[in-house]
Amino acid sequence: MMTTAETLARTVMERCAILGGYSEEKDRLTRPFATNAMRKVNEVVLGWMQAAGMTTQQDAIGNLIGRYEASTPQAKTLLLGSHLDTVRDAGTYDGPLGVMVAIACVASLQQRQIRLPFAIEVLGFADEEGLRYHSAYLGSRAMSGTFDPNDLQLLDSNGISMADALRAFGGDPEVLKLRTARWPREELLGYCEVHIEQGPVLETRNLPVGIVSAIASQSRLTVQFTGEAGHAGTIPMSLRHDALCAAAEFVLAAEAHARSVPGVVATVGQINVQPSASNVIPGQVALSLDVRHQDDHTLLQACQHLEAQAHAIGQARGVTVEWHLLKEYHAIPCSPRMMGILEQAISAEGYAALTLTSGAGHDAAVISELTDIGMLFVRCRGGISHHPAESVTQADVTVAIRVLERFLQQLAKEEKE
Amino acid sequence: MMTTAETLARTVMERCAILGGYSEEKDRLTRPFATNAMRKVNEVVLGWMQAAGMTTQQDAIGNLIGRYEASTPQAKTLLLGSHLDTVRDAGTYDGPLGVMVAIACVASLQQRQIRLPFAIEVLGFADEEGLRYHSAYLGSRAMSGTFDPNDLQLLDSNGISMADALRAFGGDPEVLKLRTARWPREELLGYCEVHIEQGPVLETRNLPVGIVSAIASQSRLTVQFTGEAGHAGTIPMSLRHDALCAAAEFVLAAEAHARSVPGVVATVGQINVQPSASNVIPGQVALSLDVRHQDDHTLLQACQHLEAQAHAIGQARGVTVEWHLLKEYHAIPCSPRMMGILEQAISAEGYAALTLTSGAGHDAAVISELTDIGMLFVRCRGGISHHPAESVTQADVTVAIRVLERFLQQLAKEEKE
Repeated sequence: MMTTAETLARTVMERCAILGGYSEEKDRLTRPFATNAMRKVNEVVLGWMQAAGMTTQQDAIGNLIGRYEASTPQAKTLLLGSHLDTVRDAGTYDGPLGVMVAIACVASLQQRQIRLPFAIEVLGFADEEGLRYHSAYLGSRAMSGTFDPNDLQLLDSNGISMADALRAFGGDPEVLKLRTARWPREELLGYCEVHIEQGPVLETRNLPVGIVSAIASQSRLTVQFTGEAGHAGTIPMSLRHDALCAAAEFVLAAEAHARSVPGVVATVGQINVQPSASNVIPGQVALSLDVRHQDDHTLLQACQHLEAQAHAIGQARGVTVEWHLLKEYHAIPCSPRMMGILEQAISAEGYAALTLTSGAGHDAAVISELTDIGMLFVRCRGGISHHPAESVTQADVTVAIRVLERFLQQLAKEEKE
Repeated sequence: MMTTAETLARTVMERCAILGGYSEEKDRLTRPFATNAMRKVNEVVLGWMQAAGMTTQQDAIGNLIGRYEASTPQAKTLLLGSHLDTVRDAGTYDGPLGVMVAIACVASLQQRQIRLPFAIEVLGFADEEGLRYHSAYLGSRAMSGTFDPNDLQLLDSNGISMADALRAFGGDPEVLKLRTARWPREELLGYCEVHIEQGPVLETRNLPVGIVSAIASQSRLTVQFTGEAGHAGTIPMSLRHDALCAAAEFVLAAEAHARSVPGVVATVGQINVQPSASNVIPGQVALSLDVRHQDDHTLLQACQHLEAQAHAIGQARGVTVEWHLLKEYHAIPCSPRMMGILEQAISAEGYAALTLTSGAGHDAAVISELTDIGMLFVRCRGGISHHPAESVTQADVTVAIRVLERFLQQLAKEEKE
């Protein structure tokens, strides 16, 4: 009996649940880089890769690689996959789903004894979340040759260096110091990652899957408002320089501007008031600002606009404003070719091919330094992620598998021509 | 040579500075209830009272009382004074100034060998700030018979009960349990307290002193906004229920409403965001709200208006709002007679007689349960109080002394008639 996408999807769901059982913490899923839980997960996934006809390998940083050979030697390689580590108190799909769907598609090829005009390597990245060393994308950075050897000296919360953790895990810090990409650029066809959306757009649009157009550009800032503290009972409203009122005006200005520019998201997630007493007018407020857009230029414009607004708000209130840029991440556009093939595949499955920006970062962003990338998002319930309530349906996973199978067929067709 | 108001004021300034040296903490002024620093201050002030011709006494809770007899027996008693304790890291005028000005006026009467048709008792309250037991107005509550005997069991940060602290100080917890007012109501003529403004109104109006019309009504509340937490990168603006944006809208609504109703002050001094991560949309925000006005009804209306606005803001955003009233203090109006005499005195000194509300609480509010009250505010630099930078000028203190002397003269005149 032929394995259908439905049965493959059931296997994917079962396997995600199995992997969810490997945790460093009792009663919740927490699977950081280079831990026992990761070792066990790599063993289990390695077995599934081999059962799908792949040769397997674990690299110097602990990434898992399963290779399914092409129909001809000297063929290029297509990369599929995602990460196998998790955040603290995680859900079971963020990361593993992409690896399991990739293995399912290779298993299907193997069962039908099909070889493609390119090899497939399914990647299970060792660290995307950065939970243990607060340094994300260790796995994909090692593979793409952009790993920073200084990170080997980072210490985890128990004082264990990354180098020691790696040695204990069976990795090789010395190899990482060479900063060599796993593949020469010309050997690669591209990288396609399946991942849960981690947002509510697909659910809102009633679609099982969507195509990522870009991984968003992001600016992280701190904005500080300094007014004058004072007695809440004795200073009339007209004589106040309330730092929190200025900050509140800015929070709303950021929201209004983000709403007015399509695709921009702006978030004030933290706010710190000094002196923070119920009967004292706030003298100082510091807030975090996170702004994202799929396009660097639009993001820059949004930030410039908000900076000007912050100063205008401060000036009108006699409140000093300091604007500090903490970090900037440039936008990573997905390959138009990959997007086009995914679009074709989704349309062929009878769904509207919605493109959306990924507001969150992914291994694909790092791999983009090496080859073209594409990403397929799968609907998740309520847009919830990084939480035990993370949930996808088997029906949507079935669609994702079908789309990825069609993607492989179409790419094979194009590569043959 | 006759002592002028100028020389009296110089003495007041010197004495405030001397008292500022008695502290429980090195390098900063912190003088809590029933401490060694308070014992020394009481000794020193007792000496000054006696030098001004007063008989002195320390009551069961540690209040200091200096009595200057009337011209006739069976006369009523006028109360003057303020408190001698301080907040942590205090200035030197909040409290002591009122006691020193009262003693100065009595000293002046004594020097001129004048007796008035009423006795004067100058009060140095043992605790107004509530620093040690987080229970304010202990001194005036004991005097007015509104002391709560349960408070005797309160523990300070060292685990010392108020009863034990009082015994060590030379007080008498057993007497306090009787809850007896020091005076029958009919024996009192009123209470007049001189105090620094602790706000910037007099400075702004370029006036040395002002008349308090009422001690403000106050409502203390907590407002909680519950929206939906989510990923700052993946949730589009249109799908958010950002609790902080709702809270920010409310902060500005409270400010705008307070600005629109004369005399209302509204302050959000604390704000707490959950989960408080720069890349997570705030799911829950709790904020403190402090609203004051000189009139209970206006305050109630302001609070009702703000509650309705909070709910409207929440409803428009899909954010739940909870409104919790923590405490309500009713307004304490000053006696029209006292205000009238103070007004006459200030006008006679050539200044505009400005009336203003006291947004802060004072011993006068407690004494109002026993007799008519009046308060004279003295300008303080920048409106700063509860801070070492607290500052008044000798020139303004001179005006305060002259005004209080005229107040006594006029009251004497009226009482004779």
